[in-house]
Amino acid sequence: MENNSDIIYGKNSVMEALIAGNREINKILISKNIHTDVKISKIKELAQEKGIVFQFVGKEKFQPYAEFNHQGIIAQISPIKYLELDEFIENSDISFRSLVILDGIEDSHNLGAIIRTCVCAGIDGIIIPSRRNVQVNSIVEKTSAGAINHIPIIKVNSLVNAVQKLKENNWWIVATDASAKDNYYDVKYNDMNFAIIMGAEHAGVSKSLLKASDFVVKIPMQNNFNSLNVSNALSAIVFEALRQKLKN
Amino acid sequence: MENNSDIIYGKNSVMEALIAGNREINKILISKNIHTDVKISKIKELAQEKGIVFQFVGKEKFQPYAEFNHQGIIAQISPIKYLELDEFIENSDISFRSLVILDGIEDSHNLGAIIRTCVCAGIDGIIIPSRRNVQVNSIVEKTSAGAINHIPIIKVNSLVNAVQKLKENNWWIVATDASAKDNYYDVKYNDMNFAIIMGAEHAGVSKSLLKASDFVVKIPMQNNFNSLNVSNALSAIVFEALRQKLKN
Repeated sequence: MENNSDIIYGKNSVMEALIAGNREINKILISKNIHTDVKISKIKELAQEKGIVFQFVGKEKFQPYAEFNHQGIIAQISPIKYLELDEFIENSDISFRSLVILDGIEDSHNLGAIIRTCVCAGIDGIIIPSRRNVQVNSIVEKTSAGAINHIPIIKVNSLVNAVQKLKENNWWIVATDASAKDNYYDVKYNDMNFAIIMGAEHAGVSKSLLKASDFVVKIPMQNNFNSLNVSNALSAIVFEALRQKLKN
Repeated sequence: MENNSDIIYGKNSVMEALIAGNREINKILISKNIHTDVKISKIKELAQEKGIVFQFVGKEKFQPYAEFNHQGIIAQISPIKYLELDEFIENSDISFRSLVILDGIEDSHNLGAIIRTCVCAGIDGIIIPSRRNVQVNSIVEKTSAGAINHIPIIKVNSLVNAVQKLKENNWWIVATDASAKDNYYDVKYNDMNFAIIMGAEHAGVSKSLLKASDFVVKIPMQNNFNSLNVSNALSAIVFEALRQKLKN
């Protein structure tokens, strides 16, 4: 499928999209052979409530989506709405907020896991560049387990400009780099707006962004093994930020 | 492939296995069409040094492995050696050690990411049950990015018995459960042998193990979104344990 941004699949993804209600669902296709469990019942109930069409169809309808782990359920949905950075910055009804900035993440599963981790850790938004980074597609939506509906994704043309704008608006920028001196837990996250920059799986955070950052931190790797998956690295950092906030 | 435990694939996996040197490599197959980069050169150098045969072969040799992201390189390797729990417990040359116990992890990619995270965070071993848990296979080896060679995997018939034995040997058991009162960062990890039990993606840690544990802790989830991927959840916990150790 060339353009798959209008399909979401899997029980959790469809249920979460129904609950969130922030995107238009045109139609839900359910396999005739599906085992009706609690989640399927809930999906039917929510769809009826919201007046959304659902159809029981033969398995041939799922043929085009064979590459996906669709669990016998697919929804045709309006593409995700990206937020403008200005909108996000202006909408400052709470005192201190947090962002994650992704610089060149290539893998859809990683982006999905990152979105999920950010929602669980209370991050307020995710910035991705419009080029040189995976965009939100069906695999991302599925891997995020519906988390995509709980956090704004902000797409920008230039990460350097975005960082500049954040700094002008009283945000502090924390970049990660394996050669940093400070550890990620040395930063005090609880009394400022902060944005954490995570780099590409191989190349890391680009030089121009490292230079623009207020803090550059590393995760102290043991066993001389410096190859943590990007979503697991991010998890360590955002939950440390949450720990500091909750402990305060 | 029914039995794929004797094949590893991908540049990093093969290189890490060569460096670790703890498993017998019979032969390395390299695609004739491969782009020779730093890693491939290093692999050839290491193989020559260790007297391991490597062959340049046509792409038809890779046909049986088409489902894997092999990057044009495959090694035939002896199966991973699991460690006995008794052996691990006896080998106590350092004062305080750490374990991760997996209770019913089903997904190979999750197990790979968990192994990688454990090595980076300095965990000393991983216990898996011989049933109702994914075993170490090619996908696990690949996802672990070679980390599998840096940490002992201990396979046991009964997790309950393993936990019992650990407790008798002065280990403290920390289980994770969404309904726990305490947070994972309330535990002091730095002055004891500890084992962290992570549960299955859906079912969580089994009741008998929760009952046998000294601490039951949760990760405080934000946004009412209680669906963190198991490897990302583990990452938050093991890096908190490491933070406490390094801060001490």
